[in-house]
Amino acid sequence: MDNPDIQKLLASLDRPDADPARAASGEVFAADIAASLPHMDEPTQLLIFQLLDDIKAAEVLAHADENVQAIVLGSLDQERLTRLFIEMEPDDAADLLAVAPDEARDGMLAELDDDARRSVAMLGEYEPESAGGIMTTDVVTVSSNSATDAALAKIGDDENSESMDSVFVVDNSGALVGVADVKSLLKAESPQTVGDVMSADVISIRADEDQEEAARLVDRYDITALPVVDDAGRLKGVITVDDIIDVLEEEASEDMLRLAGTGVTHPTSEPVLRRLRARAPWLAVTLAGTFVAALLIEYVERTWFEVGEGGDANFRALLYFIPLIGGMAGNVGSQSSTIMVRGFATGEVDPTRPMRVLRGELLLALLIGALSALLVGCGVALAHADSAWLGWAVGLALPCAIFVAALVGTLVPFACHRVGVDPAYAGGPFLLTLNDIAAFLIYFAVAIQLMKFLGIS
Amino acid sequence: MDNPDIQKLLASLDRPDADPARAASGEVFAADIAASLPHMDEPTQLLIFQLLDDIKAAEVLAHADENVQAIVLGSLDQERLTRLFIEMEPDDAADLLAVAPDEARDGMLAELDDDARRSVAMLGEYEPESAGGIMTTDVVTVSSNSATDAALAKIGDDENSESMDSVFVVDNSGALVGVADVKSLLKAESPQTVGDVMSADVISIRADEDQEEAARLVDRYDITALPVVDDAGRLKGVITVDDIIDVLEEEASEDMLRLAGTGVTHPTSEPVLRRLRARAPWLAVTLAGTFVAALLIEYVERTWFEVGEGGDANFRALLYFIPLIGGMAGNVGSQSSTIMVRGFATGEVDPTRPMRVLRGELLLALLIGALSALLVGCGVALAHADSAWLGWAVGLALPCAIFVAALVGTLVPFACHRVGVDPAYAGGPFLLTLNDIAAFLIYFAVAIQLMKFLGIS
Repeated sequence: MDNPDIQKLLASLDRPDADPARAASGEVFAADIAASLPHMDEPTQLLIFQLLDDIKAAEVLAHADENVQAIVLGSLDQERLTRLFIEMEPDDAADLLAVAPDEARDGMLAELDDDARRSVAMLGEYEPESAGGIMTTDVVTVSSNSATDAALAKIGDDENSESMDSVFVVDNSGALVGVADVKSLLKAESPQTVGDVMSADVISIRADEDQEEAARLVDRYDITALPVVDDAGRLKGVITVDDIIDVLEEEASEDMLRLAGTGVTHPTSEPVLRRLRARAPWLAVTLAGTFVAALLIEYVERTWFEVGEGGDANFRALLYFIPLIGGMAGNVGSQSSTIMVRGFATGEVDPTRPMRVLRGELLLALLIGALSALLVGCGVALAHADSAWLGWAVGLALPCAIFVAALVGTLVPFACHRVGVDPAYAGGPFLLTLNDIAAFLIYFAVAIQLMKFLGIS
Repeated sequence: MDNPDIQKLLASLDRPDADPARAASGEVFAADIAASLPHMDEPTQLLIFQLLDDIKAAEVLAHADENVQAIVLGSLDQERLTRLFIEMEPDDAADLLAVAPDEARDGMLAELDDDARRSVAMLGEYEPESAGGIMTTDVVTVSSNSATDAALAKIGDDENSESMDSVFVVDNSGALVGVADVKSLLKAESPQTVGDVMSADVISIRADEDQEEAARLVDRYDITALPVVDDAGRLKGVITVDDIIDVLEEEASEDMLRLAGTGVTHPTSEPVLRRLRARAPWLAVTLAGTFVAALLIEYVERTWFEVGEGGDANFRALLYFIPLIGGMAGNVGSQSSTIMVRGFATGEVDPTRPMRVLRGELLLALLIGALSALLVGCGVALAHADSAWLGWAVGLALPCAIFVAALVGTLVPFACHRVGVDPAYAGGPFLLTLNDIAAFLIYFAVAIQLMKFLGIS
């Protein structure tokens, strides 16, 4: 990005199908800025933080993903960082602290007032993916004998920036006993108390329960603010529905990408080497498994069938590795298409801009291909000491097949979007079969050329 | 289910890890009843509706999935059905009408009062998966020169059962001009009007836009109620965040299951034949594609390598179909594990009760296996008229391999949950490779036995 002018930057990142009414609005939303940051280089990201006022910058920082947060933490001067930190909600502040380097953490905590520091420190004690880890401590509470007018006044006076449609009712020990929504409070006649209008059937979650359970409760019971209690039933905080939506999206991405074996949850914004490391176990399993399959096929042949020599034997040896070539190509191809399909859905990948992600996907495919080829080449050489050519044939064909699979797997979802077909339809079995055939064609072409070159028939 | 006592029924369906505080609550939530219904047989479902009072029954009906709604519509007497229908929110009523048989629809609409009928009829005009299709028309509006007290009174008096934390501000023509949250209204001093405290930067969506766009807006801007406008900017309704959560879950399931080629979005509650029909295209593609691969491999051999006779030729012929056996087994196996993993996440499948879903998955696998075996057997017989045994070998091995793949693919996620490992880790490449090896073992075992039986070596 060459032009540092923030208005132009943001205008250029507007999606072409954006609602014109929203684009015309003078105010640029913090969430939009935060979503654009991963697509910029580091100097531009820092420039944007310098241009924003403290309140806006704090909002953007809260919405930004962990990679961007880490960059900002490492580059902003301590004074500015502290000012932003103080502006943030307790749950966002706790999340930021978790990403901060250890030496900066105590300094940042010390800058908060006592209440805030206690809240943030307490939030940091919980597992990140538990109810306590995603809740905020800013919650309005009243006792059941409060007047309804007083309860309404409390909602109005609360400094918490998130508006809620209910107050939680606690007893003297702080235990959660009920919930009263704003409508009931407004409808109440003067002498009525909160206890008269509240509902005692309040759904809550314990702070140590998993965030998926919180999401399940919010989903099933249509809750907008889920209270979090400790083992004694005392109210500790509340999980708002927007955080639940983030949890649901995160969990769905996680499942989808884990099933495909990609290893990380936000692939298109991770560095290529980290993605390689994350995928390595799955690729190793596929490689090892299909190699075992090749040995198995050869064993069956040797034991139950006549073994011939000459051209036949060479062709048969090639056939042993069909599952390996097809399996690896299919694997990488469907990982690429899963990443694109999920990326379109979460907004992390722009379905009209394939070039942005293609480079990373192909680079990753080349690395995977090279690594696999090396491993397989050695494996084949060990298993077939007398047919070195076989190791070369497989070792040369494999990276080509993988590269083509990644190319097709990445581009087909974009093509689907272009012609108005749901990209998810083009993934899975369809692409797997296509990759299979392409992989075999490449395999045989490479093998035949190699054998000609080496003078083997 | 033998015992019709509703309390016992519901207690028996309580998940073993349910929060004891919630289980002790006297009131059983409509959402819980609705979630239990798909696991019961039809007479029990209808019994439950007879036992519930009108208000509760209407809530349960609104939460129930389409299959249950269709059953209820077909079985309840017209009078009761009408009473429930009148109790429902406009958007839920519109959804129910969409599932109702045509002849019942006009009758049901006629029972509503004029306002309600207009709303429901209008909602039915929109595409089901558009913003207009998921919105509700119950929305509180005020003009910008209203006093803040009057606005608050309006919120309190509104009969809409859903409590909201904001009012929408419209001008004389009904166009949306701003939004004012309850907190700002409560905080306002007496002479202030709504216009003084509202925010003019209100995010909205057009009624004809896709529901995925609505979900994207709610997710990005942390909205709890998204206003829906027509082309002229007039406010038509609002989408509440709980409906957005349903959209997000639905879309994620759709993507995940489409990528795997399963064809339907709620597999475990669909009849087996419908699932077979839905999967048929994907399985046909895989079958056809891998069959083409087999012909391709044979073609390559005939053209570039010496072709031998005898035992070798038989073994080689077997090898041509390795991609087909492995591909179909891998396909079915990963579909099963995807369905289980997604089912755990949405709550449709109980991770402690594998037997509930195993029967359906295995039945489907047997049907797929039988159908594929028939098609492949014929195809092989046509392509290799002189080697009928080959068609039998593939045709017998294929259903066995598919059955085993479905068994493993269905059970491994349950086993993972049992030992505390994320089920999604055990899907994908790991299972695919396992299914490959199992499929090959089955294939060769069947082929060798068959050849022995037929006296071929």
